[in-house]
Amino acid sequence: MHCEVVAVGTELLLGQIVNTNSSWIGEHLALAGIDCHRHTAVGDNRNRILAAISEALGRADAVIVTGGLGPTQDDITRDVIAELMGVPLVRDESLVARIEAMFGVRGRPMPANNLRQADVPVGARPMDQMPGTAPGLVCPIAALPGADNNNAKVVYAVPGVPWEMRQMVEGTVLPDLKQRAGISSVIRSRTLRTWGHSESGLAEDLSDEIDRIDREGGATIAFLASGMEGLKVRLTAKASTDAEADLILADGEERVRKIAGPIVFGVDDQTMESVVLDLLVNQGLRLATAESLTGGMISTRLTEVPGSSRAFVGSIVAYQDGVKRSQLGVLDGPVVSEEAVTAMAIGACERLGTEVSVAVTGVAGPDSYEGQEPGTVWMATCVDGEVEAFRTLWPFDRARVRQFTVITVLNALRLRLVGRVTDRSVTPHGLS
Amino acid sequence: MHCEVVAVGTELLLGQIVNTNSSWIGEHLALAGIDCHRHTAVGDNRNRILAAISEALGRADAVIVTGGLGPTQDDITRDVIAELMGVPLVRDESLVARIEAMFGVRGRPMPANNLRQADVPVGARPMDQMPGTAPGLVCPIAALPGADNNNAKVVYAVPGVPWEMRQMVEGTVLPDLKQRAGISSVIRSRTLRTWGHSESGLAEDLSDEIDRIDREGGATIAFLASGMEGLKVRLTAKASTDAEADLILADGEERVRKIAGPIVFGVDDQTMESVVLDLLVNQGLRLATAESLTGGMISTRLTEVPGSSRAFVGSIVAYQDGVKRSQLGVLDGPVVSEEAVTAMAIGACERLGTEVSVAVTGVAGPDSYEGQEPGTVWMATCVDGEVEAFRTLWPFDRARVRQFTVITVLNALRLRLVGRVTDRSVTPHGLS
Repeated sequence: MHCEVVAVGTELLLGQIVNTNSSWIGEHLALAGIDCHRHTAVGDNRNRILAAISEALGRADAVIVTGGLGPTQDDITRDVIAELMGVPLVRDESLVARIEAMFGVRGRPMPANNLRQADVPVGARPMDQMPGTAPGLVCPIAALPGADNNNAKVVYAVPGVPWEMRQMVEGTVLPDLKQRAGISSVIRSRTLRTWGHSESGLAEDLSDEIDRIDREGGATIAFLASGMEGLKVRLTAKASTDAEADLILADGEERVRKIAGPIVFGVDDQTMESVVLDLLVNQGLRLATAESLTGGMISTRLTEVPGSSRAFVGSIVAYQDGVKRSQLGVLDGPVVSEEAVTAMAIGACERLGTEVSVAVTGVAGPDSYEGQEPGTVWMATCVDGEVEAFRTLWPFDRARVRQFTVITVLNALRLRLVGRVTDRSVTPHGLS
Repeated sequence: MHCEVVAVGTELLLGQIVNTNSSWIGEHLALAGIDCHRHTAVGDNRNRILAAISEALGRADAVIVTGGLGPTQDDITRDVIAELMGVPLVRDESLVARIEAMFGVRGRPMPANNLRQADVPVGARPMDQMPGTAPGLVCPIAALPGADNNNAKVVYAVPGVPWEMRQMVEGTVLPDLKQRAGISSVIRSRTLRTWGHSESGLAEDLSDEIDRIDREGGATIAFLASGMEGLKVRLTAKASTDAEADLILADGEERVRKIAGPIVFGVDDQTMESVVLDLLVNQGLRLATAESLTGGMISTRLTEVPGSSRAFVGSIVAYQDGVKRSQLGVLDGPVVSEEAVTAMAIGACERLGTEVSVAVTGVAGPDSYEGQEPGTVWMATCVDGEVEAFRTLWPFDRARVRQFTVITVLNALRLRLVGRVTDRSVTPHGLS
């Protein structure tokens, strides 16, 4: 089963919008076990859309078309598909009712234009998922005269609005494709997030395990460096049932964790921030930050997590040196130093009344400071009054120096908090 | 002159990388006056690359191919183009020397694999720009036998690494395409950034001007909503010289500014942060922030600007209510209120020793707080002890509530700072 993707929209060709839809669909086709050999993008032009879809159908068994389902005159995907199917468009009254109801909820009258969105090629079927006013369509394409009629193909039309498209692809397109392809197997994946090791280093550590998987089977392993989201290790398992795939993934996760150890900080959607906040909440600790180089970025990331106020109280962003001294008790002398970052970490706890803090001071660049080159960063964590400080020299630009510092200092705190749990669980008395 | 874009790389089809290269090239082809009707992405597969490039050449006069120029065995764009040209690859010794020199600078020996990057189809020409080890190639395609020989076409091969690709497209591909197309005109654009008006509202305000441009010519106008980067108004001018295009843009800018007024905050790469910082530096003022809802995001954005410490001193992020009271002097009572935000703005100035501050407190969601619904935000600016506070109710999710608050409160400060300049310049005494 081969499926191609055709994205419709002049704004894609003009670079006004990046074609993230095709990437997302490509990723999910691969996870569903469907091959995809080509992505195409064309403008809102009848002949060119028609050519692109026809050519894709010539090569593939199925084509997913995104975009061109809106209410305006340049939204012509419906018309082109009807032409390709050799059928007229008919107005679907149940769709009219659904679209009218959506406008009703928002207390607005429906513009007459939106009626076009209820037009469906004869023989096509609207998808159940309909988060916006644009219905998705499953459009069977009869085999060409003279061709093998068992080989009928299909075009899926979905909107260009990403969240509408995603619901329809997950809810209708992928299950339908898998059924047509006779794929009864399931493919599931799990992502382990790591920090503290390079991609090549981690690949080397895992090379024996990867060789073993090649010989004996199991969850396959892929790496994806993702900046301040960490280095991701994606495990993928193919099996005949969800439960079986989950068992394979659990086994793969255990093996990777055994080799990679504490550099694994989270799974799937867990971020470094959410993991640190959970550890703090579980241990009844409150966190403050003292930031110079990162300028509030650690605090910003922490407060992106809903409910972060259960553990995070606030931050003193001491960007100018005077603020470091007046607000955090940094003494005279260099501010990119172990002494300064230690004072900042203690000052944050004292000032904001917390047991835990992280502190950061350094040279973001492009210029050097106090004779230290750009990328020089001192970081510290403080837990119950005990400070641990360390220095790094990043070979990066200003933006990445800041980003990598955020995840690195939070990771240092994570390791200390995990260590506290471990220490307690291995006390001679057991159940402390 | 039509030019298509073919992106090569299995990682694009699998969604591991988003195809930003095609967007960028599409935008720059449009700005150069070259039509582009289709973008294609294919994997690292000989037959499929060959088919995609051949088909694109069948429709267009020129094709830009990105990716597949690396040193590894799956980088086969060079080989496929040589096949398409019907010529062998020959090793270019000057390229060998350039690649070896790059490894020399980095103090590393050149792996033998990298020699493949010096292989060039006979008749093709390496591009002068070569920021990495992958040379870009200009590859003339002879007209097919029997076809009109004056109609020779061209394939440009550039690397998939974005900064390498961009240098080559700007330095070689676009000038070469314009020369082939006989385009002596230049197209230039300028982006005015605005905040404080909706896209439809601004379009309505400018509709007479847009009609006038349709009748009389001038810089064309396009809108692009860009979240916390503002609502962008792009002016585009076509002329026979750069100087002439600049005059048209200047005239267009003046007309838009006259209609849009003070909602225009910047031009091209100027961000709200950089504009506010410039105003502060010019007026000799220092800025602090007091943030609850935004959790340090205002401070983070300000310190993204190199040199921001000339005006920005720091922030007190008072996420938990206790910190608002202990660090910023917020009295008992609701913290999402005019009284609280006013105290925060004054507290930031006093605590951090500045003349100017912005302060923010509100309900980011998803839950309500103090009986106020998510999206309720109080913002304040303080200049020389005078506070101006205002309330907004955003109909957005948590992330956008925070983002829109950042740009809105900075914009309020900008308007006050601009007002100070204007006030002084219109004093009865003139030259104050």
